[in-house]
Amino acid sequence: MSNFMCDISKMNEHKVITKLEFFHQTSDFHLEGGGVLKELDIAYDVYGKLNDNKDNAILVIHALTGSSHACGYYEEGEEKGWWDDIIGPGKPLDTDRFCIVCSNNLGSCYGTTGPKSINPETGNPYALTFPIITIGDMVNAQKLLMTHLEIPFWHTVVGGSQGGMEVLEWAISYPEFVKRAIPIATTHRLSAQNLGFDAVGRTAVMEDINWQNGNYYGTGKFPASGLSVARMIAHITYLSEQSMHAKFGRKLRNTNTYSWDFDPEFAVETYLEYKGDSFVKRFDANSYLYLTKAMSYFDLGEKHGSLFAAMQKTHATFLIFSFNSDWLFPTSSSKDIVRALRKSGKEVSFVEIDTPYGHDAFLLEAKGGMTDILTGFLK
Amino acid sequence: MSNFMCDISKMNEHKVITKLEFFHQTSDFHLEGGGVLKELDIAYDVYGKLNDNKDNAILVIHALTGSSHACGYYEEGEEKGWWDDIIGPGKPLDTDRFCIVCSNNLGSCYGTTGPKSINPETGNPYALTFPIITIGDMVNAQKLLMTHLEIPFWHTVVGGSQGGMEVLEWAISYPEFVKRAIPIATTHRLSAQNLGFDAVGRTAVMEDINWQNGNYYGTGKFPASGLSVARMIAHITYLSEQSMHAKFGRKLRNTNTYSWDFDPEFAVETYLEYKGDSFVKRFDANSYLYLTKAMSYFDLGEKHGSLFAAMQKTHATFLIFSFNSDWLFPTSSSKDIVRALRKSGKEVSFVEIDTPYGHDAFLLEAKGGMTDILTGFLK
Repeated sequence: MSNFMCDISKMNEHKVITKLEFFHQTSDFHLEGGGVLKELDIAYDVYGKLNDNKDNAILVIHALTGSSHACGYYEEGEEKGWWDDIIGPGKPLDTDRFCIVCSNNLGSCYGTTGPKSINPETGNPYALTFPIITIGDMVNAQKLLMTHLEIPFWHTVVGGSQGGMEVLEWAISYPEFVKRAIPIATTHRLSAQNLGFDAVGRTAVMEDINWQNGNYYGTGKFPASGLSVARMIAHITYLSEQSMHAKFGRKLRNTNTYSWDFDPEFAVETYLEYKGDSFVKRFDANSYLYLTKAMSYFDLGEKHGSLFAAMQKTHATFLIFSFNSDWLFPTSSSKDIVRALRKSGKEVSFVEIDTPYGHDAFLLEAKGGMTDILTGFLK
Repeated sequence: MSNFMCDISKMNEHKVITKLEFFHQTSDFHLEGGGVLKELDIAYDVYGKLNDNKDNAILVIHALTGSSHACGYYEEGEEKGWWDDIIGPGKPLDTDRFCIVCSNNLGSCYGTTGPKSINPETGNPYALTFPIITIGDMVNAQKLLMTHLEIPFWHTVVGGSQGGMEVLEWAISYPEFVKRAIPIATTHRLSAQNLGFDAVGRTAVMEDINWQNGNYYGTGKFPASGLSVARMIAHITYLSEQSMHAKFGRKLRNTNTYSWDFDPEFAVETYLEYKGDSFVKRFDANSYLYLTKAMSYFDLGEKHGSLFAAMQKTHATFLIFSFNSDWLFPTSSSKDIVRALRKSGKEVSFVEIDTPYGHDAFLLEAKGGMTDILTGFLK
C-alpha cells in the first residue's frame, strides 16, 4: 500500500501531478455525538514517498471548505492545490523528503463521506439524517486513514483555522502518534462573536426556501442565495479591515459616479458577491451546516476539564503561528494555547506574523513570513 | 406654532408624556440623487419649550433604525424613548431648559415619508419607485421642519452612528444654523468593511423570495427571513467581542449538554435570533435598503474635495465622542474628523469613552461616561 500511494510524477516545470485516492471502510464508524456511520469513504492525496523507516509522514489538514487537493495539479492546466506554495519539491513541506498526506474532512463534499453522500441504508443522500459530527470525529477518520496507509505515526501534523483545531485534537487525543504539531491561525474554542457569525450563516442557509429542510438533492433546486450570504459574511471575517481598505477602499466597480440604485456598485460589494457565487458552485450547503456546527462544538477546555488539562496530554513539540491582523481567531487565542502548553512543560515555539491579510494570511503568507520558520522547524 | 408644539405634561414620576406630531409639505422636495418627492411627511417629537429668544432648540437625530420617539412615553406603560436616559427634566438634554426636537429620518418607516408610504401619483406604496436618498436629503428634510417650527437656528445638533453622520452634514451644509455639533460614534465615510457588511445585509433581504422586488406591500408576505439575517449580522457589529463574551460566552440556552442538531442552542444564537425576529416586526425591509444605501453613499471627503475642505465650512463648536470598543466606527474615524477640524482652526473637544459596549455604547453609555461631559458642554 505504502509504495503504491506515493507515486508522484514531476513535470518539467516542477509541477506536481497527483491524483485523488479513496479509502473505503465498511465497518461501523462511531461518532462522538452518538451517531454511527455504517460505511465511510475518505478521499485523500499523497505527495512524496514514505521512507523505509516510515518516520517522514506529515498530515496536512485543510480549513473549513477546503479539500484534500493541497499541492500540485490533478490535471495539467487545472487549478493548483490550496497550499502549493508550501508543499512540493524544495518547499518547506518538501516532497523530496516527506510523505505528505492530506485527506478531505469528514462531513465535507470533496469525496469523503458527508451529508450529500448516499446513505447505504436508504440508497438516498443522507441530507439531515447525517449525524452531527465533531472535530474529534474528523481526526478519528484521519486516524483510520493513517492505519490504512501503514503510517506508524506523524512526523508532523499541520493545518490552519479549522485544520488547526484538528491539529490540536490530534496532539491531545493521540499523543503517541504526533511528534510535531503546527496549529496555524486557530483557536481552542469559538468565541461568542465567532459562534454568532456562524449561527447567522447557518440561519441564512436554512431560511432559504430552496433548502427544503436539507432535502434539496435531486430537486433541481439549491439554497444558493442563503449559502452565498453565509459565505459573504464569513469572507468579511477572513479579511482584515486594513486589507479590505487597501484592496477596495470605497472604489466603485466600473464608473466614477454613483448608480443611484441597489445594484452592487462598490468594488467590495462586487467582490463579495463573486466570492458568494463562486462558493455555491463548489460547495454543498448541508456540508456547510455540519462543518460550522462541528467548529461551534469544539472546546478543548470544556472537553478536558481545562485547557491546561488538555495540553498536559500531548507529547508533541509545537510550533504555533498567529497573524496580528486576524480578528476571527486573534493572537490572544493562540497565546491561551501557548500558555497552557508552557505551564504543562511542553516544548512550544510561538510566532505572531506581522501581516495585513487577516485570517486568510494562513494561505496568503505561505510565501511570506511562515516559510523560513516552517523550514527551520522541520529540519 | 411654537407655543403649540412644546406642550409637555409631566407625570408624578417625572415621566414625560409626549405625542407624535406631523408636518406635511406639498411642494416638490428635490433629492441629491436627482429624484423628486411631490409630497413629504415628517414625523417628529418635541420635548420642552422654545424660549422667547428662540435660542434653545436642540435637534436630536436617531440612528439607522430609530424613530422620533427619543424621550418619555407616548402612552403610560408603553416603551420609553430610545434616549430617555439623556433627555428629560434635569437630564443632560434638560427639557426644563431646552426645546428638543427629534424627527424620523427621511426614508424610514416611523411616520416620515419612505418606501412604504403611498406615492401620491399612483395611490400605491412607493416600494422601489421611491428615489434613492442621501444623508444630505435627510438633513434637508430636517431643515424644512426647522423652518416650519420657526426655529431660527439650532443651539446644538446631536446624534449617534447614522445620526452622527447627519450631525456632520448639518454642521457643514448649514453652518449658519448650527452653533454646537455633537457627533457620537460616527464616521465621515463607511470603510470597505462597513460597505461589505451593509451589502451582505441588503443581499440577504433582496434574495428573500418574499421580497418580490420590493413589491411585498399588501401581498401578505414580507421578507422576514432576509431582514432578520441582515439584522443579526448588523447586531454583531454593534457589540464588541468582549461584551459578547461577557454576556454570552459559550453558554448554552437552557441545558448543560449539546443538542446535537441545528436548533439554536448557544445563548448567543438565541439572542441574535430574538433580535432578528423582533426587528422584522417593527421595521420595513425596503426602508432598511434605502437607509443603508444612504450610509454607503455618505463620504464627506468625496463630496467636498477633502475632509479638511468639508470641515473648513462649519462654524459650529464640536464635541465628539467615540468608544474604544466600537469596531464598526472606531475611534480612528472620529480622530480623522478631529484632525480635520483642528487643522481648520475650529473648536473641538474629543472624548474617547472607555467602555466594553462597542458601537451600541452610544445608547448604553447614556447613564455612564457621556452624561457629565454632555451636561458641561451644554452649560
